[in-house]
Amino acid sequence: MGKDISSDKLKNMTEQERSVLCGEIRDKIISTVSKNGGHLASNLGTVELTVALLSVFDYTKDKFVFDVGHQSYTYKLLTGRYEAFDTLRLKGGISGFPRISESPYDAFDTGHSSTSVSAAIGIARAGMLKNEKYYTVAVIGDGAMTGGMSYEAINDLGHSKTPMLVILNDNNMSIDRNVGGLSHHLSKIRISNTYIQAKHKTENFLNKHLPYLGKPIINMIVAIKDFLKFVIYHQKPTIFDDLGLVYYGPVDGHDTKGMIDAFNAVKDLDAPVLIHVCTTKGMGYKFAEKNPSDYHGVGPFDVNTGIVPSGNLTFTGAFSDAVVEKAKYNNKIVAVCAAMSQGTGLDKFSKQFPDRFFDCGIAEQHAVTMAAGLAVSGLIPVVAIYSSFLQRAYDSIIHDVCFMNNHVIFAVDRAGFVGNDGHTHNGLYDLSYFNSMPNMTVFAPCSLEELGFCLEYAVNNVEGPVAIRYPRGKAGIDQKLYSNYEMVAKPHMIANHGDDFVIVSCGNMCRNSIDALLILSEEGLAGKLIHISMVKPVPVDDIFERIGNVKNVFTVEEGVISGGIGETVQNEMYNKGYSGKITVIAVENSLIKGASQAEQMKEAGLDATSIAARIKSEIK
Amino acid sequence: MGKDISSDKLKNMTEQERSVLCGEIRDKIISTVSKNGGHLASNLGTVELTVALLSVFDYTKDKFVFDVGHQSYTYKLLTGRYEAFDTLRLKGGISGFPRISESPYDAFDTGHSSTSVSAAIGIARAGMLKNEKYYTVAVIGDGAMTGGMSYEAINDLGHSKTPMLVILNDNNMSIDRNVGGLSHHLSKIRISNTYIQAKHKTENFLNKHLPYLGKPIINMIVAIKDFLKFVIYHQKPTIFDDLGLVYYGPVDGHDTKGMIDAFNAVKDLDAPVLIHVCTTKGMGYKFAEKNPSDYHGVGPFDVNTGIVPSGNLTFTGAFSDAVVEKAKYNNKIVAVCAAMSQGTGLDKFSKQFPDRFFDCGIAEQHAVTMAAGLAVSGLIPVVAIYSSFLQRAYDSIIHDVCFMNNHVIFAVDRAGFVGNDGHTHNGLYDLSYFNSMPNMTVFAPCSLEELGFCLEYAVNNVEGPVAIRYPRGKAGIDQKLYSNYEMVAKPHMIANHGDDFVIVSCGNMCRNSIDALLILSEEGLAGKLIHISMVKPVPVDDIFERIGNVKNVFTVEEGVISGGIGETVQNEMYNKGYSGKITVIAVENSLIKGASQAEQMKEAGLDATSIAARIKSEIK
Repeated sequence: MGKDISSDKLKNMTEQERSVLCGEIRDKIISTVSKNGGHLASNLGTVELTVALLSVFDYTKDKFVFDVGHQSYTYKLLTGRYEAFDTLRLKGGISGFPRISESPYDAFDTGHSSTSVSAAIGIARAGMLKNEKYYTVAVIGDGAMTGGMSYEAINDLGHSKTPMLVILNDNNMSIDRNVGGLSHHLSKIRISNTYIQAKHKTENFLNKHLPYLGKPIINMIVAIKDFLKFVIYHQKPTIFDDLGLVYYGPVDGHDTKGMIDAFNAVKDLDAPVLIHVCTTKGMGYKFAEKNPSDYHGVGPFDVNTGIVPSGNLTFTGAFSDAVVEKAKYNNKIVAVCAAMSQGTGLDKFSKQFPDRFFDCGIAEQHAVTMAAGLAVSGLIPVVAIYSSFLQRAYDSIIHDVCFMNNHVIFAVDRAGFVGNDGHTHNGLYDLSYFNSMPNMTVFAPCSLEELGFCLEYAVNNVEGPVAIRYPRGKAGIDQKLYSNYEMVAKPHMIANHGDDFVIVSCGNMCRNSIDALLILSEEGLAGKLIHISMVKPVPVDDIFERIGNVKNVFTVEEGVISGGIGETVQNEMYNKGYSGKITVIAVENSLIKGASQAEQMKEAGLDATSIAARIKSEIK
Repeated sequence: MGKDISSDKLKNMTEQERSVLCGEIRDKIISTVSKNGGHLASNLGTVELTVALLSVFDYTKDKFVFDVGHQSYTYKLLTGRYEAFDTLRLKGGISGFPRISESPYDAFDTGHSSTSVSAAIGIARAGMLKNEKYYTVAVIGDGAMTGGMSYEAINDLGHSKTPMLVILNDNNMSIDRNVGGLSHHLSKIRISNTYIQAKHKTENFLNKHLPYLGKPIINMIVAIKDFLKFVIYHQKPTIFDDLGLVYYGPVDGHDTKGMIDAFNAVKDLDAPVLIHVCTTKGMGYKFAEKNPSDYHGVGPFDVNTGIVPSGNLTFTGAFSDAVVEKAKYNNKIVAVCAAMSQGTGLDKFSKQFPDRFFDCGIAEQHAVTMAAGLAVSGLIPVVAIYSSFLQRAYDSIIHDVCFMNNHVIFAVDRAGFVGNDGHTHNGLYDLSYFNSMPNMTVFAPCSLEELGFCLEYAVNNVEGPVAIRYPRGKAGIDQKLYSNYEMVAKPHMIANHGDDFVIVSCGNMCRNSIDALLILSEEGLAGKLIHISMVKPVPVDDIFERIGNVKNVFTVEEGVISGGIGETVQNEMYNKGYSGKITVIAVENSLIKGASQAEQMKEAGLDATSIAARIKSEIK
């Protein structure tokens, strides 16, 4: 395959050449992801789809929005990033998601689910207003279609009739196996394979001749068309027809020729069109085809065996075990997730207590409000959603959980830096948004043991909403800190070397703060380290007592400054009459891109060396 | 009508008695709302619907979730709140929305759109898990159905088959006239009026006998049913059928008998059922029937003439004029709203520039991300959404606007206390959430002139996202503060009486702070007042300079403490080496209920007297 492939060259390839190209792309993706980690199954599923798209449309002019963006590798390889692809997801390298800062051919940044149709409508409308001729294409998976935003967009599209193309990439999967009424609906549609050709002809005919026909005749033709559809194919109009889109499909998503024909057939319709393409996640790599969920977002693996080295015990694993343990002895506990039972560790719970487990699809708002409904009825829902995805439910948490003081427990995984997925996936806002919410209690444990204790405290000792936020990966601290779970609500003096300064830290920052303390100790500065796992309400009186007369306090947290723990400590300590200096060490720039977690922390000034340097510079 | 009406009595009424009851309820609603203000059109539309519901279901046992909740007045009148109804929306009185703290018969608090089905699913599932027998009913308008959350919930419902009832209250309106493909779909359904009776019989038959039939026979019957539906009634399956619900309708929403029959027919189906009820907004009050939008949320009015006294020029009015003015000279400016063109003042823009105006329906997430699509394409979208409703788009603002530094301007109306709608509608979080977002610039103007200048600055002088937040109603300050718009980015010394203290305020708090300054002046304390309209980034250096040697600084803002302007000023001033005391005056308890705006401010300690008292207590 050429390093750079022009739009014209793609258009003029033979099917044979396209097939070879797809094979080369697949090899490149498998070998790169096996080294750098990344999204494998979704990218292998969309190789032919992307090649077909770029064989019909012109990527130098037309606009493509890839929903979530974890299927954009082929697009990147074909649009000038073949050489740089070896740096995929590395610090300073190619992002695993579309980035307008990376290429003029990336039309819109994605990362979170279900945004593509909305963004594409905006782009299409702008083209019309500015009289610029380009096609706008949104590529969205059936999983992302379970997110309410995509429905909001399609509802608008069907009403406004903005001409653009939606490609529904139907692989019958979210990250986990798909849920939802829509999924059943799509299954029914997939059954009728021969449907597309016949419909094609009718639609083409109608669309060509409609302008010349009067309204009653059009209505009659539409009625006859529907009737024929029904009688001949036993095919009902799809939900997309109902919402006002022109629906075509299903098309085989691994047959480039079939897709090219379909795209050519609809590209000049002056209407919103949805093409339903059926793909297989993991296509062409047998391990991924068999278990696509295991190769969704994956670390480096062995290409020949498919074996992904398993990590040490993580926060996710500890949560997974702890929630099952608690649920054994408390039948009020139920669990809720948003299409991520495996990622959040709730898969174990779902197997042990299938009746008490609810996967709501990629639908965080619904998941949270549904949990509030469970809570007003006396159950204790544990809602496990990653920090950055939970942002989608911000209003649901305030309006449906906090205002009524509902006892919902949020297990907020991936809080803090997440590594190579980059800034769209970093969980840097949750401390800030939880802090502003009434009735909310927040924990940020530093060890696996503490995570379990926080969960126990949340179940037994809190009446209203609780969030427990913990990072991706391993815990920094592995020793036992407490003799009983109730101690997690109190500050814990981790180290007491002297009175030069005090660090107040939470979560995994406890580890980096210990190391900073040691560095400073070697330089002759002796301080204390207070760890707080309950960060809201901040136990100010207890902190005050432990600080004593020390005049330099440093708060350290893995989140943005504004609204974080540091600002709260600052405000409340000053209100209590503290007269020393409090310095907030937190994330100043929340746009830190994909790199390892350690690299991201360093960039944010949150590694031990940076913390030590900051403290030294402030107190001298 | 009796003061309290038992569930049994309702069940056993004659149609004649029910008709009299509905008339009495209507009179009570009209007379109360004409005095206290409130939601008129939506409540008048659902009198018969609610009476029918309570004639079939038992409100002492069954659970009703009213979406948005602005149609719950009849329910309140019938469930023990007839006497107290005169206090509707007044301080300490009956809320205009369902409140679990107000009555054991309110199953779930609502206020924001599209939450009801999610909450009801949770409540229904809890009943099953706890083996408690009750019916769960969600009542949702077709407007609220444009919100993505409702689709997420229905998608889950159709998949999980949780038995419960959704009443789709179809009045062909959001707050404004409805938009969206779904709306067209519902119109088509409404055409076939005779459909319900026939379908009734088929469905009843099938539902009774399905358990005894084998799968192939069931499939055949379903196919025949669909075929008959199609041929005889030319009725396609609805979107709700597609998503897995049992659909019944449409039913006349002002025919109690018809609705009672329908509810009785479906109440014992072991499935999720949606009943499509058609109602007329404003029914029974001619002015409201004719112009339902004018009587959606309305202030006190004259019952006989329907005349609503118009207020003085408001922030909304000033924005409405300003955005039209700017758009005349800058054709990049486009406007976006979420079903509130009238409420936000964008109706004027929509008439002047119909091609440049986009109403996205009650779909805040889509509206924001669609705007981001417009912005990446070089346009300047102005997105006007109320503060509390914009919470729904929290993630969209971060992920689709801020991360890409898109030049989207948010016109955030109803920021601060909104008065009688109460805590679900107060806009107390926006300063906090905007503050935590990267690349975001935030303004909080204190006067109508300043609002216009902020908009001009946002258009001309900012590259990325900007939010301009302003309160409901009139401006506290009416004098001219500036000679040109660029001055809005700098702090403004409003008063300089002496060095005892400095107040730094923003938004409408400027007015209350002036008054506090005068109170303190009479008591012998002389201070300064600095107003900042640009609150992010906080112009710390300029503030520092103006503060000089004053040792007591007070920040005053109409929002929650955590993450607000005060905490930022505190953190940044201390970082710059300020050694005096900074006290944050803001909203400590964000659960302040419905009352007048002035009463809410007083309760929050943000009226002039409270501010003065707080300052006095801190500096003496």
